[in-house]
Order: sequence, then C-alpha cells, then structure tokens
Amino acid sequence: MKAILFTSDATPLQIAAVRRELMHDGAAGISTLNGARVVLLISDPADEIRLDEYSSLPGVTGVMEQEEKNLRVAHDRPPIDIQSGIEGLTMIAGPCGIESEEQVATIYEFLAGEGLRFVRGGAYKPRTSPHDFQGSGKSGLVMSSEIARDYGLQLVSEIVDPRDVEFAASYISMIQIGTRSMQNFPLLKEAGMSGLPILLKRGMSATVEEWIGAAEHALVAGAATVVFCERGIRTFESITRNTLDVLGAAALKEKTELPVIIDPSHAAGRRSLVVQGALAGIAAGLDGAIVEVHHDPASAKSDAAQALPLADFSKLMRLSRNIRAALTM
Amino acid sequence: MKAILFTSDATPLQIAAVRRELMHDGAAGISTLNGARVVLLISDPADEIRLDEYSSLPGVTGVMEQEEKNLRVAHDRPPIDIQSGIEGLTMIAGPCGIESEEQVATIYEFLAGEGLRFVRGGAYKPRTSPHDFQGSGKSGLVMSSEIARDYGLQLVSEIVDPRDVEFAASYISMIQIGTRSMQNFPLLKEAGMSGLPILLKRGMSATVEEWIGAAEHALVAGAATVVFCERGIRTFESITRNTLDVLGAAALKEKTELPVIIDPSHAAGRRSLVVQGALAGIAAGLDGAIVEVHHDPASAKSDAAQALPLADFSKLMRLSRNIRAALTM
Amino acid sequence: MKAILFTSDATPLQIAAVRRELMHDGAAGISTLNGARVVLLISDPADEIRLDEYSSLPGVTGVMEQEEKNLRVAHDRPPIDIQSGIEGLTMIAGPCGIESEEQVATIYEFLAGEGLRFVRGGAYKPRTSPHDFQGSGKSGLVMSSEIARDYGLQLVSEIVDPRDVEFAASYISMIQIGTRSMQNFPLLKEAGMSGLPILLKRGMSATVEEWIGAAEHALVAGAATVVFCERGIRTFESITRNTLDVLGAAALKEKTELPVIIDPSHAAGRRSLVVQGALAGIAAGLDGAIVEVHHDPASAKSDAAQALPLADFSKLMRLSRNIRAALTM
Amino acid sequence: MKAILFTSDATPLQIAAVRRELMHDGAAGISTLNGARVVLLISDPADEIRLDEYSSLPGVTGVMEQEEKNLRVAHDRPPIDIQSGIEGLTMIAGPCGIESEEQVATIYEFLAGEGLRFVRGGAYKPRTSPHDFQGSGKSGLVMSSEIARDYGLQLVSEIVDPRDVEFAASYISMIQIGTRSMQNFPLLKEAGMSGLPILLKRGMSATVEEWIGAAEHALVAGAATVVFCERGIRTFESITRNTLDVLGAAALKEKTELPVIIDPSHAAGRRSLVVQGALAGIAAGLDGAIVEVHHDPASAKSDAAQALPLADFSKLMRLSRNIRAALTM
Repeated sequence: MKAILFTSDATPLQIAAVRRELMHDGAAGISTLNGARVVLLISDPADEIRLDEYSSLPGVTGVMEQEEKNLRVAHDRPPIDIQSGIEGLTMIAGPCGIESEEQVATIYEFLAGEGLRFVRGGAYKPRTSPHDFQGSGKSGLVMSSEIARDYGLQLVSEIVDPRDVEFAASYISMIQIGTRSMQNFPLLKEAGMSGLPILLKRGMSATVEEWIGAAEHALVAGAATVVFCERGIRTFESITRNTLDVLGAAALKEKTELPVIIDPSHAAGRRSLVVQGALAGIAAGLDGAIVEVHHDPASAKSDAAQALPLADFSKLMRLSRNIRAALTM
Repeated sequence: MKAILFTSDATPLQIAAVRRELMHDGAAGISTLNGARVVLLISDPADEIRLDEYSSLPGVTGVMEQEEKNLRVAHDRPPIDIQSGIEGLTMIAGPCGIESEEQVATIYEFLAGEGLRFVRGGAYKPRTSPHDFQGSGKSGLVMSSEIARDYGLQLVSEIVDPRDVEFAASYISMIQIGTRSMQNFPLLKEAGMSGLPILLKRGMSATVEEWIGAAEHALVAGAATVVFCERGIRTFESITRNTLDVLGAAALKEKTELPVIIDPSHAAGRRSLVVQGALAGIAAGLDGAIVEVHHDPASAKSDAAQALPLADFSKLMRLSRNIRAALTM
Repeated sequence: MKAILFTSDATPLQIAAVRRELMHDGAAGISTLNGARVVLLISDPADEIRLDEYSSLPGVTGVMEQEEKNLRVAHDRPPIDIQSGIEGLTMIAGPCGIESEEQVATIYEFLAGEGLRFVRGGAYKPRTSPHDFQGSGKSGLVMSSEIARDYGLQLVSEIVDPRDVEFAASYISMIQIGTRSMQNFPLLKEAGMSGLPILLKRGMSATVEEWIGAAEHALVAGAATVVFCERGIRTFESITRNTLDVLGAAALKEKTELPVIIDPSHAAGRRSLVVQGALAGIAAGLDGAIVEVHHDPASAKSDAAQALPLADFSKLMRLSRNIRAALTM
Repeated sequence: MKAILFTSDATPLQIAAVRRELMHDGAAGISTLNGARVVLLISDPADEIRLDEYSSLPGVTGVMEQEEKNLRVAHDRPPIDIQSGIEGLTMIAGPCGIESEEQVATIYEFLAGEGLRFVRGGAYKPRTSPHDFQGSGKSGLVMSSEIARDYGLQLVSEIVDPRDVEFAASYISMIQIGTRSMQNFPLLKEAGMSGLPILLKRGMSATVEEWIGAAEHALVAGAATVVFCERGIRTFESITRNTLDVLGAAALKEKTELPVIIDPSHAAGRRSLVVQGALAGIAAGLDGAIVEVHHDPASAKSDAAQALPLADFSKLMRLSRNIRAALTM
C-alpha cells in the first residue's frame, strides 16, 4: 500500500494540493489516517502513481510503499473519546435481550449511576435455529435508545443485516458487529459507511490477523473508529463455553493503538466466572470490558446463566478501578 | 415443534382442509416437508394448537410434538435431481476466480465433456483484507452464466450480500453460501426465499449441529433443497490449510437424507492432496465433491496452489467412479 | 467410590478400629483425605463392603458412595504450606535451562532476595527432536540443588523418566510433571510414591477433567499434594505460542481446594507478554505463578525469547502484590 | 545434520574404512539409514568433522549437511516386510481389552482366517482415572502372545512404562506407543532399543512435525522401523470423539517412505463410522488400518461402542481390497 506522510505543521491547503495531484494521477481512492500527523493512504490498483514525485511537495515529509496491508489498524488512533465509567477504560454493560421498558429503564438507571457512558441493548439477535426467539427488532431498538437518552447514555447495539444499518444509525451511537458477522464484509462496509464507531467482536475461530483485516474493512469504509472486543475462541475445552484469549488480546495491543476490550460473559457461560474474566483482561492491560447485567437474572429470557446481578456489577467496577490503579503503583 | 403426518394416499383436498383448520386455530406458519409422504410443520409460538384434535381428521395418520428443532434437515429429501457427472454422485468443478471469457469457456467446455451438469464460477469473493482483489462481481456472474448455458451447464456461485440474491437468481441455478457466511442468517433467509437449491459450506469452526441449524434456516425460508459441503475445519494442525473432517461429514449423513459432498481444495491447500481428499470422502459414503480446476494453474489469479489441472480432474472422475463401484461390489 | 466420614473429634483409636473392620471385610485399599476432618476412601472393586453397617460405629458421622471418581482432588487440602514470595500466593521462578554454576547462583541469590521459597531448575528436558540439546541431567540437578540449599531455597525440577524419581527425590522438594507427561501414568505413580508435592502442568490439549484425573493418580499414589499449573493449551491461534486458559484455570478452582497457579512463559512465547499473563491469572483469583527468568536473557541457551530479565521479575512481584491487595480492597 | 552417501556398489570394506575415519575425527555417533543405498548419519555436536575431506574417498558419492533434522524419517524405508492381510497394505485387528482366553482365541482364529499377520492385544491400558480398570498386565500379554503363536500370528501390544519393554519384547512382535505416550521420550528410547518395529500412534494434539520427531527418537534408538498410525486429533467438534485427520496423514506420506496407517475406531467412537473411516484412509492412499473387533461387542468390557463385529470386519477387508484395486484401475 502507498502512503504519503505530512509534517506536523502541514496546512490544509498543502494537503488538498497533494490530494488533487493524486486524483489527477489516477488514484482510485484516498483516505486519511487518524493520528497526530496527517497521512494519506492511496488505493492504486493500476499501479500508476510514482511516489517519488511526491516526496518533495510542500508539507510532505515522506512517502512509503509497504507490504503491511492493514495500515489503518496499525496506525489509527481513536479520534473520539470512548471512555466509559472508569478513567482510561471503556466499561459497557446492559441486558442481553430487551424484555420490557421497565427492565431496560431499571438497568440503565443503575448503569448511569455507576458512571457509564455507553450501554448495550440487543435488538437483533442471530440465533442458531430459525425456530428460536429472534430478538425484538426495530421496536426494541427505538425503545432502548429513547430510555438511554433519558439517562444521558449512548446505545451500543448489534446489527446483523446491512439493510438495517441506515435505520439503526439514527438511534445508536456505536454499532456492534457480532462474532458470527466478523467476516460479513457487506455488513462491515455498510456499518463503516455510517461513520459511527464499531464494536468489533472477534470471530469465534478468527485469528488476530483476520480480526485486524475485518477492522480494516470497517475503517476503510468510513467507521469513526473500531473497538476490538475479545469474547472467547472455540477450542476443545468445554469447562467454559469458549476459551477467553486474554493473552491474544494483549498481543493485538502490540499491533494497534485502537482500544481492545474484553467480553467475559459468553466465554464464562456462567455468572461465577464473569467478574474473574473481566479482571483478568484489565490486569493484562486491556482497555475495558463489556458484560451482560440483569436486575433479576433468574427471570432473564436469554443467556440468564451468565448475566451479572447489579450488585456484582458494582463490585466489578470497584475491583476494576482498584486493579487499574494497582498497575500504576 | 408440532407436526401432522398424512397417509401416503391423502388427497390434496384433505391436506388443504387441515391447513385451513390450522390457520383458523392460529398457526403462525405452516410448511411442508419434502419426502414420500406429506408432513405439515406448524409454527405455533403462542402454543394455542391442540394436536390431538387433529389426529382423527381424514388423511391424517399421526401428530407429533418433539424437542428436535431441525425437522426439515432431519426428514427432507431433495425434491429435484442434483446428480452431476457420475451416477448417484454430485460432482461439481470450476475455476476459483473468473479471469476471462476464454478461461471460463475453456474450462466449462472441458467439464461438459466430463459429463458434469453443475459448474462453479466465483464472482463475489469474500476477502480477508479490503485491499485484496474482491472478485469480478455482477459482470463476471452474467458472463459465466451465459457461457455455462452455451454448454448446457448450470452455474453454482457464491453470494455474500443478501441484496445481490435477487439479481443473481436470474443467472445461477444453485446459490453457494461460503464458510464465512454459514451463520449469516439474513443471507440464508434471502437465499432460501429465492427457491433455488443452496450449496451450504460448513463454517470453518462450525459444529455439525450448527451446520444443521443453518440449513434449517434456508429450508424454512423456502430453499428447494440444501447440499451440505464439508470444506475443512480450523484446528491446531497446519500441515494442511484446514483439517478435512471426512468422518464428521459421514456422521451428518446419519442425521439427514439431504446430500453431503466434500470440497477438498481449500483444506488441502495444495494440488497434490486434492484428489486424495475427494476420494476419501467418496469412500466414506459421501455424495460427491466440488473442486477447483484450472486449464493453466500456474497463471491462476487466486488460490493457484490448489487448483487441479484438467488431466488430474479426469483422473479424479475415473477414480471416483471406480470407488463408487468398489463400495457396492 | 465409597467413603467414611468421621466427626471432628474422632480419636485415632476409633479410626484405627474402623480401618481394621474394613480390611476384615475385604477392602482392597484404604486412603485418607487431607482436610479438616478425617475421611477414609475405600477401594472395593468386588463391591463387598456394606457401608450402612459402618454408619453407627464410634467416631463415624456419615458414609457415602458416589459417582464422583476423583474424591481426593475434590476434597483434599494441601497439608503443607507452599506459599512462596507473596503472602497467600505461590510464586516460583528460575532459569529455563541450567547453564553454569555462576548462572544458577546469580539467579537464585536474586530470587532469595525477592523472598521466594521455591525456585525452579530444569535438568531433564523433553525435546521434540532427538538431535536437540537434552538437558544437563543428574549433574545439573545436584548442582542446582546445592546452590538452592546455600540460599535456603527449595528446588522444583521436572522429571520425565520414572526411573529418575528415586535419585531426584533426594535433591528436590517438589517434582514438576511437564505438559507432555501429564498422562504418563507410570511416572505419576512413581512421583506420587516419593511423597513429595507435585507441580502438575496441564497437558497441552488436556481438558480440565483429564487434568483432575492425572492429579488423582498422583495423590492416590501418595503425593503430599498437587499444585495445578496452567501453561496454555493448543488452539488454532498462533499469535501466542499457546492459548493461556486463564478462565479454565479459574473454573478448576471451583472443583478443588488445591492450589492452581499459572505459567505464562511458554504460552506467551515472548518476554513482552509474560508479566501480563501472570497478572491476568492473579487477577482471576489463581494462587500464584511460575516464570522463567534469566540474568542475561540474550545469552540463554534455550527459550531465551520468553525469559524475564531480573528487573522485570521484580516488577512482576510488585504488581502481583498490588493486584492481590486490590482484590480485597 | 551431516551425512555421507555411498554409491550403490560401495563395498562393506569401503564403508568400514569411512566409519573408522569418522570415529578418528571425533564423531559422537554414526548410524546407517535403511534404503537402497548406504547413507551414514553423523552426530557431530562439536562440529569437528570437515565433510569435504570425505567426498573423494572410495565408494563415497556425495556428502551433505542440512537443516532437516529428522533424516531417518525422511529417508528410511522399512527393512522388513510388514504387510498384513491385503497385498500392499497392513491390516491389523484385535480386541480392545483382553477378557478371557476364549475371547482372544475366538477372535484370533477368525483374524487368521482373514489372512492377517499382525493382531493387536491390549494388556497395559493407560486410564484417565486411577479408579478405572487398568488392564490385565503381564499375564494378559503372555496369554495373548501364546494364542497368537498358535495361529501363526504376531502380536502388537501397547507398552506404557519403559520398565516393561524388556519383558514384553520376548512376547510381542511390534510395540505400540499410544497417543498419550507419543512424546514420552524415555519410553520411545527404550522401545527403540528393543530393535522391534514400533507402531506409533499420533498424539491427540500432536502436529505432523512433532509426530515425525517422535519417530526419529525411536529410529535413532534402534527401532527396526516405525509404522505411523493416525487415530484422530482433538478439535472443537464432538459429533465424533476425535477428528480423523485423513488428509494430514496423507500429507505425512509426502515426507516419508515409512508406512502410515489409520485407526478409525477411537475417532469414530461408534461402530457405524469405523468402516467408513478406514475406507477413507485407504482411498486417500494410506498403507492400511488397525481396528478393534469383538466377537460379541455387546459384552465387551471397554470401548464396546466402537468394536466391530466380525462380520463387519470381513466386509471391511473386502471393501478395502476393492478400493485398493480401484485406485490402480
């Protein structure tokens, strides 16, 4: 991939001049890296652009052409603040499924009290069998979004069909791409084009490299940023539902400055291990956690076994803060 | 799930009367199993239908309500003949990517000569990185379809975006759902609604149970039939690109009368093992194979290492016939 | 398995009387659980012993016969103190291979200064190829043991051949069973018969249930106790050498009161992730960690990439203490 | 590793002269490859031998020094005939456990009638729990061996403890190394030193490379030859007990001229799939199969579900012959 780097004091006019020249020379696409300095990434499938002709233009500090395919993941920084609940971390929580207004309001009120900024709310649910409950769809989304707004919260929700993105984008602040959709490229593209940040769950058997590739798809399409979310991989072991790959997520952080958070709920498969999984991730240096909570887990319609009672969530917040502090003492 | 079984000589009028009654009682959906006898599957989320009231109606031989969710996969038989190339088997071949009219014509002419009925042609390709070649899209599809028709062949092609199904359905005879899309439920639904048969590749880390669930999604939506296709699963071993689960596919055949074929190309990752993989599948009792061929593998744009030269494909056809015969001697 | 439970104030005489009666009735073996109260476990393959006849004997509070096979793992508590370095935790460190007296002395002196009680020293090494360096054998063991003693430390070392146990037992304080030997039952039995505690690494593709079974083998043979050690499992992911199963180890703790520690060195495969892996384990509630250290990692003969420099180990000790404290604040 | 190749008409005297010279120059070990031409493999850890000085000695046709560690696996051919039952194949069968003289005699008589030369008989069994049946040990071995001899058969039996090799070697003709022992290096060494051929099962999560390394251990120690045996690997899929890696075994054959056979019994976990698994292996070009049979499966003490009734074994033999022939038609 070809790229042009600008000096830190390059002016918008200088950058625009380079863009014009690139278009004139036949660039198929130009995008801009988020970060301290401006970098233009150039799509040039016909290989017509001679980079050395650009290296001496005003404002340009260097040009490069490199093997590394996923430049945005490698170099992007989140252009927006996605901190939530704990300084320096992104803590997200919410019910697994939307059951009633009362349920959602009870939980969101509690989460607002814990200082969260982002809350989750599942409307569309991918289900293994066509005969299972398929989620509450649009009405659940609109309702959750309104309640979230009432508490000053922003909604994160999973989208599974590219045709739902446009509608959903009016109601949610972050699009969750689920584990089964990690390599659903039309969906990633549509979600990216919304310009919203994307919470990208790792595919249940995706390598970290494939996960990076999926994020690059969303970023190239226009996503504001990508929050990676480790949720457990599929292995031979069944004492937990999935194997939470804490160290794989830590290894990803060596390759990107984008945030990487952990979702212990699905891997644990039961309440007793959820807090431990989240704390393990934070101790390993990850940037936050997303968990399922329920004000009355015994009555939850789906995945009840792993939903955290509210008191346990408060404990998780307290211990997460403690561990975050412990790492810097 | 609730079901009503009819006697083998039940008349259409008797069946229609039962349907009317079910609608009146509040059935949310009724679908018909393909097979020797008529079976109505009843969707009844509100649990309002009392089956025992139906057991004595004219033409009805029994009623049942069972745990088993995926009744269509368990009991459907293909309503159409999908044999291709070898009696009792479904052999499918084609180039991995569409490169030129000449390439496609050369390969299809050869395959027609080998007696195939179905040929593959990839138009839309899901790629791990957004910066890789993304396939030739609609134009490639139309072109392949026309050349296939010229040779009396039917086209099998992968669709990755539900919004492409309607267009593609005019040109192809079987929709391939790729490994990354196995649990893309909006796509399965749209593909099923086309009424075409579906070639359903196993997800790279899907259990056989999840694979069955995905097929049920397509069948319930209206797919003519589903052809399961084992293509290798993801394991720790890297001497082959994926681990071809021959015995897992054989185990699936114990749970369905739908055809199960094998795709050794991606698992093998190299030419030398493709024929061996296909023969292993046929010896294990599977119903056919799909492989990538190329008239000039050295120049193939994608996945060249695993494309079979035409002479090797002829050998594969000959040995497959021999093994099929050997199993019945 | 049959068991007899005694009251907490049962006298040795009462217990001895029950033992005599059991022998007389044909018990093939009787062993005693370590714990707050005395429990006799009875091996009775011929099924000749009637438990109800024992329930009213003096000192007996109950009898039971249960499916659960691995009673010792389920109910044993460590009869000896194995704390090392940090209150309530078992921290162990040492060089991966033994290179020279000077190397060992430098490292052990440092570790003694960090407050450790147990240090590792590899003498026998299982190597994948017969043409690789096979370890320093007996001489390395004797030398390490003497240096450890000089610093008041106790040696933990891996044994791979049952015929080496007797010799090694004079020099080491804890026998390590490596990942490739987890189901080497003759070795487990011989190691158990030494009466030493066993550090039992998890097999690289062992389920937690199999790991428990292996521990039971060692305990039944006479091991003082078993320290479980999670060291990463084999999965499809290769960004780390193995996938550290932090949550699987936490799940094991729900099934035993024996200690469960973490070995991040082999899973991480590189220095940068070792500290993160150890901290993740401690944050998840595990009982300690074992890591490889080197005073001059650049010159280490084997596995140099993952050995922790001494300064990093000091940091690990400090952060581990902090996290341990953070969990109880 | 360094090696010296001789011309096909090199005389024993010429070879002996080269050996002498190598010893004089400080070779730590010299071993001879089995094959059409003599090749000396030289162990030279101190790197003192200058190969070019040897290239012009009488009888020498070339010298080489190469990265490839496992030269014996790469170049050895079986020096003895291990065909059994079907021309060009090695078919082995027998009961899973030894139950009685009558059982063993009934089965061996049947297998002799089917033309087998090698039969299996399990005496020592590695069991996951210490409380399970541990096998019949020495007495079972002696008994099976005598019955085998009566029918002109040769016994293949698993050894798990290096201290049992010497005793067992008087009674058996091929030593089986089980999946849990594949990397038990002291056992491989002891078994190799017996000079018998080794049936080497693949470790349940061993890569093909590790499997080759284990075989090299046995060959370097003196094993007559190694027969590789694929028996299924551990993956996420549980519809079969293990995933039979037919294509991985075929890939191994590209790296060795030693025989590679298939054991479908443990992977299938049930009778219905055993024949299909064996035929898949033979169709993929493997060199034979080993299966468990029982004259009365319903009464088998262990692994009854997967033992093949005698009539099914006859069918397997017939179909295996057919497929072998089909591959060459």
